[in-house]
Amino acid sequence: MRSLIDIKDLTTEEIDNLIKRAIDIINHKEQYAHVCDGKKIATLFYEPSTRTRLSFTSAMLELGGTVIGFSDASSSSVAKGESVADTCKTVSNFADIIAMRHPKDGSALSGSFATDIPLINAGDGVHCHPTQTLTDLLTIYREKGRLDNLTIGMCGDLKYGRTVHSLTMAMSRYKNIKLVLISPEELRMPSHVIHDIIKKHKMPYKEVTTLEGNLKDLDILYMTRIQRERFFDPKEYERLKDSYILTVDKLKEAKSDMCILHPLPRVNEIETAVDKDPRAAYFRQTLNGKYIRMALILQLLEWAKQKAKRDYYYDGTKARYDLVCKNPRCISSIEQGHKHIFVPTSKKGIWKCVYCEMEVDLRKKNQNKKRA
Amino acid sequence: MRSLIDIKDLTTEEIDNLIKRAIDIINHKEQYAHVCDGKKIATLFYEPSTRTRLSFTSAMLELGGTVIGFSDASSSSVAKGESVADTCKTVSNFADIIAMRHPKDGSALSGSFATDIPLINAGDGVHCHPTQTLTDLLTIYREKGRLDNLTIGMCGDLKYGRTVHSLTMAMSRYKNIKLVLISPEELRMPSHVIHDIIKKHKMPYKEVTTLEGNLKDLDILYMTRIQRERFFDPKEYERLKDSYILTVDKLKEAKSDMCILHPLPRVNEIETAVDKDPRAAYFRQTLNGKYIRMALILQLLEWAKQKAKRDYYYDGTKARYDLVCKNPRCISSIEQGHKHIFVPTSKKGIWKCVYCEMEVDLRKKNQNKKRA
Amino acid sequence: MRSLIDIKDLTTEEIDNLIKRAIDIINHKEQYAHVCDGKKIATLFYEPSTRTRLSFTSAMLELGGTVIGFSDASSSSVAKGESVADTCKTVSNFADIIAMRHPKDGSALSGSFATDIPLINAGDGVHCHPTQTLTDLLTIYREKGRLDNLTIGMCGDLKYGRTVHSLTMAMSRYKNIKLVLISPEELRMPSHVIHDIIKKHKMPYKEVTTLEGNLKDLDILYMTRIQRERFFDPKEYERLKDSYILTVDKLKEAKSDMCILHPLPRVNEIETAVDKDPRAAYFRQTLNGKYIRMALILQLLEWAKQKAKRDYYYDGTKARYDLVCKNPRCISSIEQGHKHIFVPTSKKGIWKCVYCEMEVDLRKKNQNKKRA
Repeated sequence: MRSLIDIKDLTTEEIDNLIKRAIDIINHKEQYAHVCDGKKIATLFYEPSTRTRLSFTSAMLELGGTVIGFSDASSSSVAKGESVADTCKTVSNFADIIAMRHPKDGSALSGSFATDIPLINAGDGVHCHPTQTLTDLLTIYREKGRLDNLTIGMCGDLKYGRTVHSLTMAMSRYKNIKLVLISPEELRMPSHVIHDIIKKHKMPYKEVTTLEGNLKDLDILYMTRIQRERFFDPKEYERLKDSYILTVDKLKEAKSDMCILHPLPRVNEIETAVDKDPRAAYFRQTLNGKYIRMALILQLLEWAKQKAKRDYYYDGTKARYDLVCKNPRCISSIEQGHKHIFVPTSKKGIWKCVYCEMEVDLRKKNQNKKRA
Repeated sequence: MRSLIDIKDLTTEEIDNLIKRAIDIINHKEQYAHVCDGKKIATLFYEPSTRTRLSFTSAMLELGGTVIGFSDASSSSVAKGESVADTCKTVSNFADIIAMRHPKDGSALSGSFATDIPLINAGDGVHCHPTQTLTDLLTIYREKGRLDNLTIGMCGDLKYGRTVHSLTMAMSRYKNIKLVLISPEELRMPSHVIHDIIKKHKMPYKEVTTLEGNLKDLDILYMTRIQRERFFDPKEYERLKDSYILTVDKLKEAKSDMCILHPLPRVNEIETAVDKDPRAAYFRQTLNGKYIRMALILQLLEWAKQKAKRDYYYDGTKARYDLVCKNPRCISSIEQGHKHIFVPTSKKGIWKCVYCEMEVDLRKKNQNKKRA
Repeated sequence: MRSLIDIKDLTTEEIDNLIKRAIDIINHKEQYAHVCDGKKIATLFYEPSTRTRLSFTSAMLELGGTVIGFSDASSSSVAKGESVADTCKTVSNFADIIAMRHPKDGSALSGSFATDIPLINAGDGVHCHPTQTLTDLLTIYREKGRLDNLTIGMCGDLKYGRTVHSLTMAMSRYKNIKLVLISPEELRMPSHVIHDIIKKHKMPYKEVTTLEGNLKDLDILYMTRIQRERFFDPKEYERLKDSYILTVDKLKEAKSDMCILHPLPRVNEIETAVDKDPRAAYFRQTLNGKYIRMALILQLLEWAKQKAKRDYYYDGTKARYDLVCKNPRCISSIEQGHKHIFVPTSKKGIWKCVYCEMEVDLRKKNQNKKRA
């Protein structure tokens, strides 16, 4: 059974096919209006996310299917201590496909192991949100006509921003992508992204600290929110915050065909006056999110019918089960009696949890080993 | 794009057509069972209201359409600080029409400005609830066979009761309507309703303080709830509350064809024994609410197709943007960066906020002016 | 109008017909895919229960119908003090059938009295949960091929476990049922179940305190959860809890075709390793829950069309209305102004509340009488 947990689960060809299919849906909506008649999606949202939930909901309805589910954990059996695995196993009796949002890293993978229907990760903690990345890719493709030969600015909280890490990884598959990383010192792109993705794929990049003076070469500007809480020093936040607010004025230096993206919701990091600028693509991006989810639901249901398989994340033969994940955000460290699974990485002696991808260095003594 | 924010948005002819359409739906349900196939309504309920939400939901389902949405703010992006405008703009990518309930005055208008799909105000704070008024009108028409030549009693909290103000305004369009206003001294009909509606339209009225002795001339009795919290003096509440409870006994003096309405939910202001009286029309009223909403959804979708326009509330040419609304219940005073819009009233020097309709007297010095 | 409040509402023949219909649905799904086109179920869940709510939801969708409702009380009019009766009466204007979950005993009966559409009790406090019992019966029938000649073990909290009481009552209708009651001393099957059901129907039974040594004769093992809070002495809980956890190891002594049931959700009372054992039927049980609910919805809608009637619970002619129910869990003792109804039992001088079935002994002076 194929699920979508991480954008890495998809080959570049598969991503390109999803984009093609989404565009076909956009051009021939009526032909898709009944392709999922009689099918149900379960939207299991353990934490609220209106935009993502309604995007999946409307996607399924526009394919002719129906929707069941819950929109926050308080109205679920979680309150009674049921595991994600048991909930997903149960729900597989009620639906044909699951879209799950959960506050813990690895929860989606854990759920997918338990069901025999496809599961789409609609956000698992700070770990992955692959349908956001697919949305971004479709939007870039529709706005610019290509996914290669682009200079992409990413602005805001690059340290904790799950979407920008994931987009960086996705863009590393395409040719001639240049990055301009715009953030305060405290919220710079993490070194593992710089080393394991950007440098590894030889993507030209520069790190800068202001929007001003750095927009003129950009084909894409990907804005994200900066949260006050991320700053050690509130004064530093006050001093800096305006530098990362996109205004009509700052946009004057940008190309006339630059495309502005934002995963939304925004608070104030893009002035509302910018909305009228034709370069503002963030509401079109939301619409694209619906179409790419339609394509994805169709693809996963087809794969389910074909009993398509793919080993994602780990090769079972090399996994070890004697280590314990200590990441407090990981589903395996939280659910009582959850199985722990670690796999080797490309770095000698470094293993990682298959759920949250937290690495452990086994060259250190007794690191993460179960007690005898 | 036409929306329904306030009952004033509709001409009397348009109201009459909605009533006619609702009656046609009642008589030919099967003919309407698929007229909205493939259409979606988004029910955006920022505060809970089972009755209104389920009424819109069942209305759309009985037209063949489907429903997306949320039933309280905690499971929406509001928690993340998204503006009503941004939420509505996003949702317009997922649905064909919006029904919105929000605790702040003017929120519905604010949302309607942001979307390119019709928006129905399902209650914005203490401001408007036009589908309740349409429900009341359809019920009166079905129960009495006419909307003119009626003596209407309104009982309970006439001061804060949004429904009775709105019904008064709606009835002022019809001929020969007499009003009997039944309330405690503290909760009398506000003077602006008396002056701007009742006296202006020369509607005969009297104000009384008890149900007893005042029912015999009524064709309609519109009951509302009295909340203890509205009283300055709890003893006064205790002394008065029974006067405003409708009982089988008090009903003896009423006409045999008087019609009893209540917007529901009731707590104890109508004795349950009254439910069996054929004059009790409040549950039929709920059913009428579904039918008028079906008519309204159809009408707004038709207007959207025809790209019908109507300038409601204000003529853009006369609006001014240099004033600030200070009403703490107004969406424009609450949402950061919200535009403020004021328009002139018929009274010289008096302007009002287009969102909450709070008036400001500009003859007073610096009233509501933005600081330079 | 026939509703389903208690499994006692159904004759054995009616139960058998529901099981037959469910099996027909399983074998001919496509023939049922549109039998409820245009019909709506209202799922009124005053307390969260994902499994039950989604089971009803998917059942109705697979019959071609649609679903309206709420998933917790906070998003309902309850917050405004509306009675269950008024809510059900209102909802009968929006839907064709109701499934209701409510924390108070007797709430479902109270609601059913108010509506003119069928109401299914989806759990009323600690009182009844008849669709769980129907689910159990269908599962036993499908797993074992019969409902008679069975030795059934029930394990866990037999004192407070609504499901085991109800299953005991249901099984008492069938021939040659033997019971093995497995529980700690503090959570033994209540004497009223022992006397009024087990002994009355001459069902052979034994009471034991451990799983070990008591599995070998069982055809069915019905597991339930033991909650720490049920124990007077926490040390006793710690000492005992492992005795009631079903493990792969303990299962070695059981028959190779024993069938393991659990109403779910489980916490840790069945080791997850047991899930792979073919005898583990609890996830199949969840699936059966959907099918029996499909059969039940169809049956109740047919009865509604035929205007079928059944006097359940009480014969109106013998009821008395002068007593007051003092059960703090009973809907009639909680809702202001609720009617109280008592009926005679088979025991002289003992009457019971029709809502919660709490008995009162009128031979004691002034017991439960209203004050003059």
